[in-house]
Amino acid sequence: MKKSFGALTLAYPTPVWVIGTYDKEDKPNAATVAWGGVCSSKPPAVAISLRKSRYTYDNIRERQAFTVNVPGAVHVMIADYCGMVSGRNVDKFAAAKMTAVRSEKVDAPYIAEFPMILECSLIGQNEVGVHVNFIGEILDVKVDESMLGSDGLPDILKIDPIIYAPENQNYHGIGKCLGKAFAIGKGLK
Amino acid sequence: MKKSFGALTLAYPTPVWVIGTYDKEDKPNAATVAWGGVCSSKPPAVAISLRKSRYTYDNIRERQAFTVNVPGAVHVMIADYCGMVSGRNVDKFAAAKMTAVRSEKVDAPYIAEFPMILECSLIGQNEVGVHVNFIGEILDVKVDESMLGSDGLPDILKIDPIIYAPENQNYHGIGKCLGKAFAIGKGLK
Repeated sequence: MKKSFGALTLAYPTPVWVIGTYDKEDKPNAATVAWGGVCSSKPPAVAISLRKSRYTYDNIRERQAFTVNVPGAVHVMIADYCGMVSGRNVDKFAAAKMTAVRSEKVDAPYIAEFPMILECSLIGQNEVGVHVNFIGEILDVKVDESMLGSDGLPDILKIDPIIYAPENQNYHGIGKCLGKAFAIGKGLK
Repeated sequence: MKKSFGALTLAYPTPVWVIGTYDKEDKPNAATVAWGGVCSSKPPAVAISLRKSRYTYDNIRERQAFTVNVPGAVHVMIADYCGMVSGRNVDKFAAAKMTAVRSEKVDAPYIAEFPMILECSLIGQNEVGVHVNFIGEILDVKVDESMLGSDGLPDILKIDPIIYAPENQNYHGIGKCLGKAFAIGKGLK
């Protein structure tokens, strides 16, 4: 028996991504979002949603760029902090002892301490209700070499990304491998 | 030291959602996506990305509706299968022994066996590269009563959603609770 919860943003899993931008004075900022996801394979692109009132909203429009910084579970306090305070009032990089590195491909900073970062160039924006969805073409993905597996690809268990559970507002870690995509389903073919 | 991977859809975590639709003949279909996320809080809305070639693309445009069905880890084989074959050729509900239930709020079926489902009405669509992002307003979220916690809210550890790791193409389970949002970050304030 299913219980109805009505019209809510209740969906599992949602990501925890920290968005890196520069403001007009070149001050780096870091803002946490859980509304977002990959939105295109070619060009590779992500969509992230921000309210117009957020500092990062103006920064992205000004610089036409942002980074997606994927925190590991060890960064959960920083990730939460970056969603609680505004870059208008504080220097979050200083407060959280993060190092801002200028991206190679786009006009936005990334967080050196985070294991995985995406450099994104703004290629579109769409209003949906109270949010604006910014579409960023992924020009480069950088991953700490210590986070790679024996196949040379990023190892999600080493990166240890954070999952957010809307409504009950808990952060979770990643769990064990359940199987290989485009393979485990063959059992039903 | 970070390694550059270039322009790739490498982002952790991405969801594993099975999209429920009806075709012109009222045949229910279920198609798995990993490109998607919440995109607005008010109205509550999700975005999912599909190539125009997919059967579900036509179904959504025809019926102006879809459901997001969140599989639990126990459904990983079904979820993978629903991303491997096309509803043009097979009846996936029959093949995977899923029960299609007509949604209350929208013209789309949901999967009775899955623990969490979102009934979504199409309110927008945007092309991004090879994908079309369908924006669905969430009109209702339904969750199995056995998946609720003592607070009456869905328990993500009971629902046990699947996380997808692009590039190395592994499915993963959810991990332990890392802390409370809008709380754990206060340590840095």
